[in-house]
Amino acid sequence: MKKKDLISITDYTRNDYLRIMELAAEFEKNPNQNLLEGKVVASLFFEPSTRTRLSFETAISRLGGRIVGFSDSSSSSVTKGETLHDTIRMVSNYVDLIVMRHPIEGSARYASEVSKVPVINAGDGANQHPTQTLLDMYSIIKTQGRLDNLKIYMVGDLKYGRTVHSLIMALSEFEGQEFHFIAPPELAMPREYTQFLKEKNIPCYEYTDFTPEVIADADILYMTRVQKERFSDPIEYEKVKNVYILKNEMLKLTKDSLRILHPLPRVNEICTDVDSNPKAYYFTQALNGMYTREAIIAHTLGLK
Amino acid sequence: MKKKDLISITDYTRNDYLRIMELAAEFEKNPNQNLLEGKVVASLFFEPSTRTRLSFETAISRLGGRIVGFSDSSSSSVTKGETLHDTIRMVSNYVDLIVMRHPIEGSARYASEVSKVPVINAGDGANQHPTQTLLDMYSIIKTQGRLDNLKIYMVGDLKYGRTVHSLIMALSEFEGQEFHFIAPPELAMPREYTQFLKEKNIPCYEYTDFTPEVIADADILYMTRVQKERFSDPIEYEKVKNVYILKNEMLKLTKDSLRILHPLPRVNEICTDVDSNPKAYYFTQALNGMYTREAIIAHTLGLK
Amino acid sequence: MKKKDLISITDYTRNDYLRIMELAAEFEKNPNQNLLEGKVVASLFFEPSTRTRLSFETAISRLGGRIVGFSDSSSSSVTKGETLHDTIRMVSNYVDLIVMRHPIEGSARYASEVSKVPVINAGDGANQHPTQTLLDMYSIIKTQGRLDNLKIYMVGDLKYGRTVHSLIMALSEFEGQEFHFIAPPELAMPREYTQFLKEKNIPCYEYTDFTPEVIADADILYMTRVQKERFSDPIEYEKVKNVYILKNEMLKLTKDSLRILHPLPRVNEICTDVDSNPKAYYFTQALNGMYTREAIIAHTLGLK
Repeated sequence: MKKKDLISITDYTRNDYLRIMELAAEFEKNPNQNLLEGKVVASLFFEPSTRTRLSFETAISRLGGRIVGFSDSSSSSVTKGETLHDTIRMVSNYVDLIVMRHPIEGSARYASEVSKVPVINAGDGANQHPTQTLLDMYSIIKTQGRLDNLKIYMVGDLKYGRTVHSLIMALSEFEGQEFHFIAPPELAMPREYTQFLKEKNIPCYEYTDFTPEVIADADILYMTRVQKERFSDPIEYEKVKNVYILKNEMLKLTKDSLRILHPLPRVNEICTDVDSNPKAYYFTQALNGMYTREAIIAHTLGLK
Repeated sequence: MKKKDLISITDYTRNDYLRIMELAAEFEKNPNQNLLEGKVVASLFFEPSTRTRLSFETAISRLGGRIVGFSDSSSSSVTKGETLHDTIRMVSNYVDLIVMRHPIEGSARYASEVSKVPVINAGDGANQHPTQTLLDMYSIIKTQGRLDNLKIYMVGDLKYGRTVHSLIMALSEFEGQEFHFIAPPELAMPREYTQFLKEKNIPCYEYTDFTPEVIADADILYMTRVQKERFSDPIEYEKVKNVYILKNEMLKLTKDSLRILHPLPRVNEICTDVDSNPKAYYFTQALNGMYTREAIIAHTLGLK
Repeated sequence: MKKKDLISITDYTRNDYLRIMELAAEFEKNPNQNLLEGKVVASLFFEPSTRTRLSFETAISRLGGRIVGFSDSSSSSVTKGETLHDTIRMVSNYVDLIVMRHPIEGSARYASEVSKVPVINAGDGANQHPTQTLLDMYSIIKTQGRLDNLKIYMVGDLKYGRTVHSLIMALSEFEGQEFHFIAPPELAMPREYTQFLKEKNIPCYEYTDFTPEVIADADILYMTRVQKERFSDPIEYEKVKNVYILKNEMLKLTKDSLRILHPLPRVNEICTDVDSNPKAYYFTQALNGMYTREAIIAHTLGLK
């Protein structure tokens, strides 16, 4: 039987997406299920990521599995010059599943080719973070009741933000979507994505202004962070740094059913006065990550 | 139901203290009890602390719980600029209990306000370390048979030592105590504590000399470390650095029932020739920490 | 009952070796056995070592035990100046078994003297790494069907390589061995080992050339890494650095039954074109480590 890795969001079909949504809802009702009894999962974080690691490790624990691994590469043999190939070959001998985060793009795919056991990509550099996309989708279906016919507004760094790219790919498998991209010109949505949407006849609109009027019609407002490091010219950064910040007062014109998502960690791109607005959903979104990751693990290992 | 955090030793009443003593004795008889089956505990150490972390994590393991977390903040999202608020809101979504160590005073109280699940403070800077106080009390009741009518001698850094401050607060809930403070003038017991004792009519005495005669009448000798960093003037440190060191020969005049406590780690403030003296109790005290922490966890989650 | 530490390979008798081989084979057939139910193992890695740590921690997990500990000393109280004595006394109070890796030679023996619970040495500096030797032996018996009458060829850094030294000691307990040492003069097998073999009438041969002809008759080819840091004169290193590298073409004259071992991590001393040769055994050897460590733990705690 072919092993079922999850490296890129496009490894999953529409049916996989729907299956994960169904399983995540099941795990939300009953998070503690002993499906991983007797199984050991390697949690290999070659760079730190509290949220993703803790939600994966909690998911594994709630499924009754054991965890071995490391939370940053300084405690690994990488410091001795071992190649990723050898580390993965070794670890895949010991365990039943590998969850891996690595700073280099493409490393997760490479690991999946080397490994005998399934690999779940928990983020490989600027490339892919598919479990984030699945938890975003679960947050959307939970709050909107559907994955189609959505008006999705994405704000901030749309150039380097891997989460928005993957979400576009996944949601475009469903009908009736409408995308709105709000970003400074330096961080605009790359042409390959706008082109992709055009070819699929999915409407998309671009803005540089982030105003209450622009987002009035949104079902989902997906915020991301504008990072100083992304700008070659610091003056350009100074110009835009306060433009893509969401304040509570900007939500007055929005729909009651709007929900605000953010992959977290947030720095200052959402003011804390938004946190108590019922439209703020990012902390619950993070919790959904635990159920979604239980679903992904169960699906990957064919336990459900 | 209000959640029962343990942030400061004064969060507990006299009855809580006695209940913890009772439970700790029960766990000492039978350390492995499956009370945390199916539960996940976050062990968030924003600064390293082997002893406290390992004894908490062993306690959780012996109770059948699972652990997620980190052992220093470099493996956490704090490095990405995430606030403590967001980290705690996120983690408290995943788990059933948070054990937290943080270098900043007040951080534990703040975390308990943000968290949905109970928080146990495993030390917040120079402020509080209540589980240490409870294990000190358990060590006292085990060795002296009582928590009242004690002659407590505290030695070393009484100015910054959070453990001695908390122990004074806790033991002053019991009758007939007598406190003796032995410290260099620069590190004397702060006035707020001597004043507090005076107001409660609890006798306390201060000394700068650490001699066999001074401690002859002690029931408990609580040693702490005099750290160079605490002194503004290095000459002052040089003057006192060898004065507050306990040597075995200094114990000749002391009672048979005396027991020596130290929160550990010790550097050189207790000579190793004391270790084999039956009055040395600090390693058993550390072991008591495991049972006491099992008791605190069970009490916090209402499992007993 | 005397506790059964494993600090040096010579702590074990010939019977112990054979018992471990037997148990390892049993765990290979059935890796998940709940022998450590209710037990807590301290995994104390004072320096990083992914392979050893992960295989130990997986072994403990597959035996149903719980793990506490640290993966490098920066998260431990060592940074506060605590002595190894105090750390071990404290930890041995909490747990049922200690697995320890430490950069200082002799530290493991010292820990075993301080600890109340058994200690397994997972490597103490350049001194000993006995569990590696036992997994090497298990790899030999699995592939050659015997532990005696072997032609063992060791290549590379034979001066500082603790794994080759221990393997010589262990295998010399069995009859009919023949040792061949291939190394640059600066890294030749120390006289104490060649002398030891001479006294036991075990033939051994030394070479500086690493050629296909030299290894044609080998049963086991044990590769190790030539590290730049070992040379006082960089020119000497430059001269030999490419001489002790195994390439696939060098294996043409070797026996079908030859197996290549390496303690890993490898850097460049075995070309990756060897990996797919059926004589390459180092990744399976690493896997054998898990079963062997399960065997060692069970043997140490008298669980089998």
